[in-house]
Amino acid sequence: MPTQAEAVVLLSGGLDSSTTLAIAKAEGFALNALTFRYGQRHEVELQAAARVAKALGVQRHLVVQIDPAVLQGSALTDAHIAVPKDRDLDTASDIPVTYVPARNTIFLSYALAWAETLGAQDLFIGVNALDYSGYPDCRPEYIDAFQRMANLATKAAVEGRQRLRIHAPLIELTKAQIVAKGLALGVDYGMTVTCYEPDAAGAACGHCDACQLRIAGFRANGMEDPAPYV
Amino acid sequence: MPTQAEAVVLLSGGLDSSTTLAIAKAEGFALNALTFRYGQRHEVELQAAARVAKALGVQRHLVVQIDPAVLQGSALTDAHIAVPKDRDLDTASDIPVTYVPARNTIFLSYALAWAETLGAQDLFIGVNALDYSGYPDCRPEYIDAFQRMANLATKAAVEGRQRLRIHAPLIELTKAQIVAKGLALGVDYGMTVTCYEPDAAGAACGHCDACQLRIAGFRANGMEDPAPYV
Repeated sequence: MPTQAEAVVLLSGGLDSSTTLAIAKAEGFALNALTFRYGQRHEVELQAAARVAKALGVQRHLVVQIDPAVLQGSALTDAHIAVPKDRDLDTASDIPVTYVPARNTIFLSYALAWAETLGAQDLFIGVNALDYSGYPDCRPEYIDAFQRMANLATKAAVEGRQRLRIHAPLIELTKAQIVAKGLALGVDYGMTVTCYEPDAAGAACGHCDACQLRIAGFRANGMEDPAPYV
Repeated sequence: MPTQAEAVVLLSGGLDSSTTLAIAKAEGFALNALTFRYGQRHEVELQAAARVAKALGVQRHLVVQIDPAVLQGSALTDAHIAVPKDRDLDTASDIPVTYVPARNTIFLSYALAWAETLGAQDLFIGVNALDYSGYPDCRPEYIDAFQRMANLATKAAVEGRQRLRIHAPLIELTKAQIVAKGLALGVDYGMTVTCYEPDAAGAACGHCDACQLRIAGFRANGMEDPAPYV
């Protein structure tokens, strides 16, 4: 049996990253999941990440602590800023206060370092540029620019032993298509946490941007979200 | 008096980053210094960074802890890998074991996040592509690619409030020119630590790549390095 190629997959424990992990598994990669603790309000997502990693058989699951000092000014990291609820996402055009400064850049940078250590060429990230909150670091042009930079950054790439590919398999999908894909791959969405402000037990609020998009995604597939809501 | 523009300056406490900080100051920026603790052997450089930051009047000095789990396999982070001594740098063409995976990418990503939080557009990094150890993330094409990515990554950039510039003022200079520039700006190099393996008091070994380059840089300026050696 040939050796599986190693992949590093960013895993938050939410719907998108869990689906991305299942896609990487279906593509035959050996899975290395990377999760961050960065002072986020929704720490129950770390428990969700652990459940999902176990269920999908990842070989390594690394939880990295990020110093929250540089990531201030977001509703996801600062308890003094309220998470917006019941926004009209069809008309909203601004980037909301849930944006965390340079978050995906920091996440992908750690993934890049770990990939070089592991000898992996493939990085997976569950960003999505259709049904999303308008974050700049979720767009295809950002991902392309990161990949280009990454291939100039590492010793393994420069020496020709590594050709980095940033896989963003959800980037052109609607939330409904993402849910359909995950269901087809057998993802148990009951164990994922997407909400920006879940309660301590992990039950979702049902009203933040992330909940709204998720609920609509399941509804478009003719089903109810199996995850718990308050 | 007009408000000074904010700059984020990566400061390790070594010769290059201390010179870079002095250059940013001479250019009139308000200084925000960013230093990392990442399990490096030479933790005395953190003390050097604090001394230099104070001497140059930085307004904020943030020391960020980086989880060393992803940065393994380097002589700078792993006590089991020996720091090379007395290499012939005129003939050495390989990237040495002191390379740390994706280090500058992680450092610049944090700087980017902090810059957005502070409203800064200018990031300074003391990389150098002439008298250096051959690290890929010190080359002009890497810095250019990072800048391009950065301008697609942040909310402030996408909204037109931020036009990120990565300043690498030393990148085309020899070590002798760097020393000359710092001396002209009044940098007290006696408080800096460059060595890859200094002793506990901060005295340099005199034989690693970093020491060799530094000693030659002072000699070319007709003087001895004022920093302590073992």
